[in-house]
Amino acid sequence: MNVEFSDRTSKLKASEIRELLKLTQKPEVISFAGGLPAPELFPIKRIEEVTKQVLEEKGEIALQYSTTEGYAPLREIIVNERMAKNGVNTTIENILITNGSQQALEFSAKLFVNKDDVIICESPSYLGALNAFKAYEPKFVEIPMDDDGMQMDKLEEAIKNNPNTKMIYTIPDFQNPSGKTMSIERRKKLAEIGAKYKIPIIEDSPYGELIFEGKPYPCVKSFDKEGYVITLGTFSKTFCPGFRIGWVCASKEILQKYILVKQGADLQANTFTQMIAAEFMQKYSLDEHIKKIIDVYKKRRDLMLESMEKYFPKEITFTYPKGGLFTWVNLKEGIDAVDVNVDALKQNVAFVPGGSFFPNGGNKNHFRLNYSTMDEEHIVEGIKRLASVIKKYY
Amino acid sequence: MNVEFSDRTSKLKASEIRELLKLTQKPEVISFAGGLPAPELFPIKRIEEVTKQVLEEKGEIALQYSTTEGYAPLREIIVNERMAKNGVNTTIENILITNGSQQALEFSAKLFVNKDDVIICESPSYLGALNAFKAYEPKFVEIPMDDDGMQMDKLEEAIKNNPNTKMIYTIPDFQNPSGKTMSIERRKKLAEIGAKYKIPIIEDSPYGELIFEGKPYPCVKSFDKEGYVITLGTFSKTFCPGFRIGWVCASKEILQKYILVKQGADLQANTFTQMIAAEFMQKYSLDEHIKKIIDVYKKRRDLMLESMEKYFPKEITFTYPKGGLFTWVNLKEGIDAVDVNVDALKQNVAFVPGGSFFPNGGNKNHFRLNYSTMDEEHIVEGIKRLASVIKKYY
Repeated sequence: MNVEFSDRTSKLKASEIRELLKLTQKPEVISFAGGLPAPELFPIKRIEEVTKQVLEEKGEIALQYSTTEGYAPLREIIVNERMAKNGVNTTIENILITNGSQQALEFSAKLFVNKDDVIICESPSYLGALNAFKAYEPKFVEIPMDDDGMQMDKLEEAIKNNPNTKMIYTIPDFQNPSGKTMSIERRKKLAEIGAKYKIPIIEDSPYGELIFEGKPYPCVKSFDKEGYVITLGTFSKTFCPGFRIGWVCASKEILQKYILVKQGADLQANTFTQMIAAEFMQKYSLDEHIKKIIDVYKKRRDLMLESMEKYFPKEITFTYPKGGLFTWVNLKEGIDAVDVNVDALKQNVAFVPGGSFFPNGGNKNHFRLNYSTMDEEHIVEGIKRLASVIKKYY
Repeated sequence: MNVEFSDRTSKLKASEIRELLKLTQKPEVISFAGGLPAPELFPIKRIEEVTKQVLEEKGEIALQYSTTEGYAPLREIIVNERMAKNGVNTTIENILITNGSQQALEFSAKLFVNKDDVIICESPSYLGALNAFKAYEPKFVEIPMDDDGMQMDKLEEAIKNNPNTKMIYTIPDFQNPSGKTMSIERRKKLAEIGAKYKIPIIEDSPYGELIFEGKPYPCVKSFDKEGYVITLGTFSKTFCPGFRIGWVCASKEILQKYILVKQGADLQANTFTQMIAAEFMQKYSLDEHIKKIIDVYKKRRDLMLESMEKYFPKEITFTYPKGGLFTWVNLKEGIDAVDVNVDALKQNVAFVPGGSFFPNGGNKNHFRLNYSTMDEEHIVEGIKRLASVIKKYY
């Protein structure tokens, strides 16, 4: 067989991380590699209860085709609870339900990016987004981050140097992979920059509500006066990922295009799980559930950072994330985190080497650690083992 | 706001049918427009039972992220039951789960078609597929059909005239919209043509198992010796569409690319509904359930065709479909089915005008009727009303 693929997909290759995750699925491996929510926190009993109710009261609707936009009561909950909590005042006409926010990422590149157009992103940035975008053959321009997130002067400079910039991609809260958070000042500035240069800003916000102290930061969209900011949300980290429910919040004009893309892509999101999620959130408080998640993740973060301080060589720096799932480790230049990972796997510890989070390559001396999936005991043991592996490089 | 969209999506507009379907959702409308399965046949009680079981026994898995390829036990059922029943001998390494077959259609164009490449399709063809393909800016070449489906001599001629043909799209069974079925001879020939010219054949088979007499026709893929045929299946018509479960069956080399596209597009299908579907099909016979659906749809088809014979003007021809959901009506040239539809809607009857099923335009004197959704009484009453509207044009 000798079939010809399109230009956009002929170079597609398997994600390093996905391949790696397969290796880490052995039960003896202490994995800091994935970004999985802790399954022991899923509200299984309550989901069972509301599922029964949905099937008994609205079974014929729950199993049937539905609208592309998504289940209206669920979109209302998103408007009144999730978006409002993040400072965004919106309506259900501004919300489209997608299969997790990953689908909304793919749609964004499809909607805005021609071949060789520029996507500006943080350096490093979320690998899954970069992979989704790559199918549309863009160029990437990376903007360095400091402790307040993407640097706005560097962003403006990049826009001026790249007049074919079609999209700015940011993960403002507890970024994947760096764990860093964009300051409120910069969020304001970013919204202004989008409007000034008429460039859509894709604000990817899967972790914003998992904040360990204080209230969630206001979304970049909360400062958006002209409709250039598109916020992507998801219930994958605050409820459960198996339901595949994310959303796009955008101006009506832009959302209309997302809806058309969704219609062509797969008609609609899963009717059944949308209705179960809505029923759940009408009956129970998602905020209370999120509090439980935060309690557990905060403990795990604290323990991981403490263990790193205790056991890692002193020269090594890492992020103190204020929420979310990840911390980011900087090794000294010259060390390749892929080599460290190979050695660590021999000790049954796994993480994700940082190189693939940089779309233009380089930066091999970093890696990402997840603290949401492993329990306390395994976190300490895993960091100990990892420290002993790393010490050989120092 | 003044945002720039990509070339591929700047011309996207809402599907006529989708807009029309919104009009037909008033309860007083007798709608032959949609392609919805009859909701009263959904096995709600049994789904409730197996859902409870899935949550109690495997809740933490059912709500978590899962593999891009899909839930292995479900893929095994597809191999051993669905594909085997259609004459295809395959393995689970050849199956990827998608969000309904619509998603697999979109992936197919993404995988094989560059801008201005040619997609060959039947004339008419499924509107939802044409819309999905259009995002990749192809040219369409339409092949006429007779009572045995797509005409193979015309297909070969078209391939010779269009060396940049990258994909052949067919719905061999009870085609949407024409209701026609491809003969076994032509299925063999089509598989040969794919191999001869090294062009992938997308065999879209949502209705194949809904055959009213005899056994399902063998898939085009059952005659595929070299791996150029890609079969798309779905449980939307035989189980329930709200679960959004379809699949791609392809050679491993091609499937690997579909998996990568799926990974970028939305990571994976819904874990929860995949597991419920698998549990259902392990516990109960889907074949028996399909038999029930066939009984009901066959009666409705018979009644619709009888009513059309009785009430429609004698000059009007239409398809006698051997299965599936649709029949196709040919008006005399010069009548625009859109006008007829406007008049019919005033009598609270709806159908889909045929024009939009022809990607290159023209052919306005046809329309599609669905017989799966309305009950017997409404079918007779709807056809009577429709006949009285049509008579004014004759």
